[in-house]
Amino acid sequence: MKVRAWATMSADSKLVPFSIDRRDPTERDVEIEILWSGICHSDIHQARGEWGRSAFPMVPGHEIVGRVTRVGAKVTKFAPGDLAGVGCMVDACRTCTPCTEHHEQFCEAGPAWTYNGTELDRKTPTFGGYSTHVVVTEHFVVKVPSTLELSSAAPLLCAGITTWSPLKQWAVTKGSRVGVVGLGGLGHMAVKLAHALGAEVTMLSTSAAKKADAQRLGASDFALTTERATFKTHAGRFDLLIDTVAATHDVDALFRLLKPFGALVIVGIPPKSLELKAGSLVGGNKRFAGSSIGGMRETQEVLDFCGQHRIGADVEVIPAEAVNTAYERMIKNDVRYRFVIDAKTI
Amino acid sequence: MKVRAWATMSADSKLVPFSIDRRDPTERDVEIEILWSGICHSDIHQARGEWGRSAFPMVPGHEIVGRVTRVGAKVTKFAPGDLAGVGCMVDACRTCTPCTEHHEQFCEAGPAWTYNGTELDRKTPTFGGYSTHVVVTEHFVVKVPSTLELSSAAPLLCAGITTWSPLKQWAVTKGSRVGVVGLGGLGHMAVKLAHALGAEVTMLSTSAAKKADAQRLGASDFALTTERATFKTHAGRFDLLIDTVAATHDVDALFRLLKPFGALVIVGIPPKSLELKAGSLVGGNKRFAGSSIGGMRETQEVLDFCGQHRIGADVEVIPAEAVNTAYERMIKNDVRYRFVIDAKTI
Repeated sequence: MKVRAWATMSADSKLVPFSIDRRDPTERDVEIEILWSGICHSDIHQARGEWGRSAFPMVPGHEIVGRVTRVGAKVTKFAPGDLAGVGCMVDACRTCTPCTEHHEQFCEAGPAWTYNGTELDRKTPTFGGYSTHVVVTEHFVVKVPSTLELSSAAPLLCAGITTWSPLKQWAVTKGSRVGVVGLGGLGHMAVKLAHALGAEVTMLSTSAAKKADAQRLGASDFALTTERATFKTHAGRFDLLIDTVAATHDVDALFRLLKPFGALVIVGIPPKSLELKAGSLVGGNKRFAGSSIGGMRETQEVLDFCGQHRIGADVEVIPAEAVNTAYERMIKNDVRYRFVIDAKTI
Repeated sequence: MKVRAWATMSADSKLVPFSIDRRDPTERDVEIEILWSGICHSDIHQARGEWGRSAFPMVPGHEIVGRVTRVGAKVTKFAPGDLAGVGCMVDACRTCTPCTEHHEQFCEAGPAWTYNGTELDRKTPTFGGYSTHVVVTEHFVVKVPSTLELSSAAPLLCAGITTWSPLKQWAVTKGSRVGVVGLGGLGHMAVKLAHALGAEVTMLSTSAAKKADAQRLGASDFALTTERATFKTHAGRFDLLIDTVAATHDVDALFRLLKPFGALVIVGIPPKSLELKAGSLVGGNKRFAGSSIGGMRETQEVLDFCGQHRIGADVEVIPAEAVNTAYERMIKNDVRYRFVIDAKTI
C-alpha cells in the first residue's frame, strides 16, 4: 500500500513529504502503524551522504514505536493492537554464526538495515521510520511494554540498545563504577541504564552546564574532562567507561581513569583515527572495546528492563514538518536529549 | 654476602663484572643460587636508559632459574635443594585489591621490580638475575618443575608468563583460533603455549623465512602481514590475536582478521602512539587489550603447565662475557629465540 513519509532526494536537499510503498504482510510479517519515530544522529550522517554510501530517495528513521495493524498467518508473537518496536535492522540471514548467537547486527551476509539499505534480495530498498507504517518480518520486531510512555520509548530502539549492550557485555551490576563520557542522546541513556542497574555513575563532560542534568538522570558524581585534576582525582576508579563522544578526543587520558582490567567502550565513531599509546592498555591489562547496537534478543531485553524500571529517553516531540530544523539543532547539540517525530503529523 | 654479578654503570656503557650485596635471608626469604638467567629485550631498554627511569649501577635480569640454598624460619613452600624461579617482581604490598586478587604486578603501592627498582622501603636498590645468587621473599618465588630443561625454563619467568596470561584471560581452549603476530622471544612462546592449549595457531609474520620455524613451534598455518591478500583470506577468522610487535604497525588491518567479539592483545610496547579507527572496534564489538606479565599465581600456573607439557623456550646459552654481544645480536633479531646466561660463568 502507498503510505506517507518524509524523504530526502539527495545529500544536499532537505527532507520533504513523500509517498512510499509498503508490501502487504507475507506470512511472517508484522504490519505496524507508526506512532513515534526517533531521530538519531546517524540519520543526519546518512541523509547528507557523510558516510559515503547513501541511496536516494531516503526515508530515515530506525527508532520506531507503533501499534500492530495486521499480521501474517504464521506470526506467533504479535496480534493486531499490540505495541511493537523496530530498530536498526529489519532482516538478516538467521543461519550464520553471529545470527544464531543472537548478534544479527554482525550477520555474515550483512543485515537488511531499516533504511538506506535493501531487503535481503539486495535490490528492494528499505525505507525507515519517518513514515506512517512499516512492514517487518516478525523476528525483527520487539514487544514494547505498555508501562512505557511511548514517545520516550522510541529512542530505546537505537540509543537505548547501543548503551545497554556494553553495560551487559561488561557485566555491570550493583556497585559497579561506571563513567559515561559525553552527555548527549547516547550518554543520557547510558547514565539512566547504568544507574538503574545499580552502578555508581559518574558523568565525564566538557561542560559544567550539564552537571544538574547529569545528576537528575542518575549520576552521583560529575567531573570535567577539560580539567587536568579530574585525571588525578579519579585515576584508577572505574570498572567501565562508556565513551559516547563522536569527535576526536584524548583516549590515553581516559584509560588512566580505569581500574586494572577495566574497559573503555566506544559507541560513537569519531571521523579521524584515534591516537593511543600501547602503554595505556598494557599497564593494568586494560581493554578498549567497540560496541555496535545489539542483537534482537538484547533489544527485547532492554525494552523489558526499561518497562520494568519505567525508563525512557528524555525527548522533545516534534511534528514532521520540523524535522529539518531539528537536524540543525542536533548539529548544535541543542536538544535534551532526543527528538521524536509524532507520526500523526507525517 | 658479596656475590658476583654483571652490571652496567651508565646508559652508554657496557656490562662489566661487578660485586653486589645480597642480604642474609630473613624469616620469609628464600636464597637461591642462580643457574640460568634469561635476557629479555627490556633488559636492553633499561640498561641503555631508553625508558627514561634507569638507576645505576644496574644488574639486569628477570628470568631467573636456580636452586634454593637457604630459607628463613617461616618459609613453608621451599627447602634447600629445591628448584626455584624468580620473575619480574620480588615484592609488593600484598594488601591492596590487585594484590589480593593475585595481580601483584598492578600493586597500588607499586611492586618492587626485580632490578632497576627498589625494595618496598623505596630506598634499597634491587639487582637482577645476571648474578650468582638472589634473595627473595617466598611469595615471589615459584616452583620450577623438575621435568623442565632448566636453561629453557628461565625465559618462562617473563616471555612465558607474558604470553600465557592473555591466553588465559581470553579463555583460549581446544579449537580456539589464535593468531600470533611477530615471531621473536614472545611470539615463539605464544605459539608453543597456544598450541599446547589445543588452539589452532596461525603465525602472522613479515618474513617468509620464519615459516618453517613457526610450523616446528606448533603453528598450523602461516601468513605474511606484508601481503594484502592475507587480510582478505583470513578476514574474520580469529578469536584472539597476540600482538608481540614492538614497532609501529597497522592495527586497523589486524582487527579485520578477528571474529565478532574477538580480541587483539598487545604485549609489546611500540615507542610511538598507534593509530586506530574507532570503526575497527565498533564493527564486530572487537576488543583491543593490553597485557602486562602476570601475577604470582598465574606465573606458577604457566610453569606447572610447561612442566606437564615439557615446554621451554628455544634458547641459545651464552657465558656472561658474551652479554654485550648478545645485546647487539638481539637488536638485529639475530637470536632464535632467547639468550640465556649460564650463571656458572658470572
